[in-house]
Amino acid sequence: MSKDQRMVNAFDPATASQLPAREQVLIERRRQSLGSAYRLFYEQPLHVVRAEDVWLYDPDGNAYLDVYNNVASVGHSHPRVVAAIAQQAATLNTHTRYLGDGIVDYAERLLATFPAETSQVMFTCTGSEANDLALRLAWNATGGKGLIVSSHAYHGVTSSVAECSPAFGDGVPLGVHVRTVPPPDSYRQGPDAGKRFVEGVQAAIADLQRHGIQPAALLVDTLFTSDGVYPEPVGCLARAAEVIRAAGGLFIADEVQAGFARSGSHFWGFQRHGVVPDIVTMGKPMGNGHPIAGVVARPQIIDAFGSRVRYFNTFGGNAVSCAAGMAVLDVIRDEQLQQNALETGAYLKAGFEALAARHELIGDVRGAGFFLGVEMVRDRASKAPASVETARIVNALRQRRILISATGPAGNILKVRPQLVFAREHADMLLGALDEVLAAG
Amino acid sequence: MSKDQRMVNAFDPATASQLPAREQVLIERRRQSLGSAYRLFYEQPLHVVRAEDVWLYDPDGNAYLDVYNNVASVGHSHPRVVAAIAQQAATLNTHTRYLGDGIVDYAERLLATFPAETSQVMFTCTGSEANDLALRLAWNATGGKGLIVSSHAYHGVTSSVAECSPAFGDGVPLGVHVRTVPPPDSYRQGPDAGKRFVEGVQAAIADLQRHGIQPAALLVDTLFTSDGVYPEPVGCLARAAEVIRAAGGLFIADEVQAGFARSGSHFWGFQRHGVVPDIVTMGKPMGNGHPIAGVVARPQIIDAFGSRVRYFNTFGGNAVSCAAGMAVLDVIRDEQLQQNALETGAYLKAGFEALAARHELIGDVRGAGFFLGVEMVRDRASKAPASVETARIVNALRQRRILISATGPAGNILKVRPQLVFAREHADMLLGALDEVLAAG
Repeated sequence: MSKDQRMVNAFDPATASQLPAREQVLIERRRQSLGSAYRLFYEQPLHVVRAEDVWLYDPDGNAYLDVYNNVASVGHSHPRVVAAIAQQAATLNTHTRYLGDGIVDYAERLLATFPAETSQVMFTCTGSEANDLALRLAWNATGGKGLIVSSHAYHGVTSSVAECSPAFGDGVPLGVHVRTVPPPDSYRQGPDAGKRFVEGVQAAIADLQRHGIQPAALLVDTLFTSDGVYPEPVGCLARAAEVIRAAGGLFIADEVQAGFARSGSHFWGFQRHGVVPDIVTMGKPMGNGHPIAGVVARPQIIDAFGSRVRYFNTFGGNAVSCAAGMAVLDVIRDEQLQQNALETGAYLKAGFEALAARHELIGDVRGAGFFLGVEMVRDRASKAPASVETARIVNALRQRRILISATGPAGNILKVRPQLVFAREHADMLLGALDEVLAAG
Repeated sequence: MSKDQRMVNAFDPATASQLPAREQVLIERRRQSLGSAYRLFYEQPLHVVRAEDVWLYDPDGNAYLDVYNNVASVGHSHPRVVAAIAQQAATLNTHTRYLGDGIVDYAERLLATFPAETSQVMFTCTGSEANDLALRLAWNATGGKGLIVSSHAYHGVTSSVAECSPAFGDGVPLGVHVRTVPPPDSYRQGPDAGKRFVEGVQAAIADLQRHGIQPAALLVDTLFTSDGVYPEPVGCLARAAEVIRAAGGLFIADEVQAGFARSGSHFWGFQRHGVVPDIVTMGKPMGNGHPIAGVVARPQIIDAFGSRVRYFNTFGGNAVSCAAGMAVLDVIRDEQLQQNALETGAYLKAGFEALAARHELIGDVRGAGFFLGVEMVRDRASKAPASVETARIVNALRQRRILISATGPAGNILKVRPQLVFAREHADMLLGALDEVLAAG
């Protein structure tokens, strides 16, 4: 996710006096106790007290359609996940220095969704920790330090991961060992996008080497969601992986966004590209909101690390986390949510394409399954980003009780990322509201 | 905690064939799916399936007294914490970009346990993330990069925090900007320990400056638990804080071990020293096993960061985490657990001192509240560490169904870290068993 772009749609504290008294008081208390690093979505922040399925509720009982939340991915407050957490918390919640059945059962079940080559998992609590551990694994396995990421990548908040997350902007300098490459922008580059991406990786490798920095890894979100959602052309990540490996580096697939069935056609985003990564990181939807994340890798990479380093994550892989993770896998399977992401995602994409036929502002509709990008442009010839208009749309939808955000360096791409349980009726609500907002201009 | 020393008491896979078949199978499945970076406690690993209060249970229903666990601090599976988690998970579990009451209520309640100067909190999911964020805050506020930690410190597993955790040993090189200082070893240095610690900090500052590295922070576990548990002399951290501040750096108190009433006399370890830190980090016991951690700091430090950097931790401070954290604070207050740590901790310490009068192996007994160190030495004149004997004691206690560990660079210090609900009867069990083990030689 783009931190810069979130801010395009953010609350400006200077306008607090326009809010209801109850929210003014809460915002002031929040500012006092949490300080200035915490931001709020939307010109008019949303105060939530309850959530269920695809709905968030404010204190007055108004329902808001959540088209943003890939964390509570199988639905807010899903009863099976809640029951699994409650039951396990009442039974046992301890760490991985004791033998436990739950972590092994879950690890095997999770690994069964992966190619045979990536056969081991290490658990963390957050996607940031997962990416941080992936860097440690890659540095250790390759002896190199150099990292290549996409131009507007976001990989997390630990210091090492933040310095390879250009989405933070100037406030967080990139590491001296970090290089960026433009994402495969199929909208502006057409069929050449994949080739140009691979050439970019090659150039970044050469630049690292020219500076005496050995490449350690190419780290990419397999849907390039922070860059603006670029699921095409499929196959380009396989070629990029070949290029980084030829230079002695590893290919790390960041599946925090694309993973856990979101892309519809596959359980993992890298599978769309026909590539087997060396390391895969995952997080957000893994426990439907419970803090669990992880790193899956080829065993030789983990062995090379484990033979030198003892890694113990106090809460990582604890009994409750694994119960939550297992329940999420159960629900995805039993409610056929990957199929729903494929089918309802296609329905939703077709709906946006129909809107594009009537609204000039929509320059491009792209995506896979339940991660779509709807790019807004000032005019279709120049493709100039319609950033202000997009922020207005996001806030106008919020006033219509539909929650959505924007992505990309210019914040002009609607980030459509519903929960996996999103149904056609919800898609119709979203499409209808967007149609009205676009018509209102 | 010392990663090196944990290994003194660790399971050796080569001995797996001596275990029951059920555990052999589980260990092999675990090795296949989790790989070699995961270690197990004890020569004979413990297989746990259930836990309650101060007891862990194996599959055969045998109860093990937990004298190790500062995570499930208010007691395993505490019903109030479980109920808070279950109820909140069924109601709402979302992030900090929306307005929520729970996070603000909890932040205010938590901050009320702090001095007025440290008035803002940022939430993370793990102590590692908290320390990592503390480094980012310190680097940003001071413009410096240099870090000073104790000789055998452990601060976590992110790459930036691991490289200032000398407890990992040679497998994890220290950062070029990291300097170490010996802890205030009251056992070997006597009344000079505090003065020598402060002189060590001064020397580390000078060495950083000589290398052109501006000091950013002195980061210490306020009970020096990984170094071997050094709660005395009180006041030395206040003098060390003055020294680092005079050099333009900050004083960061790592309360992951000492915090949340463990020291008995105070809620936070730094309070024993009469110092107000610039930044405080906390973790393990904060949610009784639920992954929640945090950073409390002076608002000007957070403002300096927040004005440049947007920090969003997806699960950090989510509604369920805050409900768990609030329930823990409620239980500590309502069950008067700080008072219990003070009184039963003193009882336990006196019990160890009585054992020391009869067993030459015990060289020193020290600690505060419910974090005690019992140092084992070959002879009391040379104070040579009795490392092998300590490992044997830890494993012998495990065979008697009492779970404990060792700490310090030589692994010769029993780490006595019971849950806050530990009662005199449990102390008597531990003391009686240790007496027998020591008598058996």
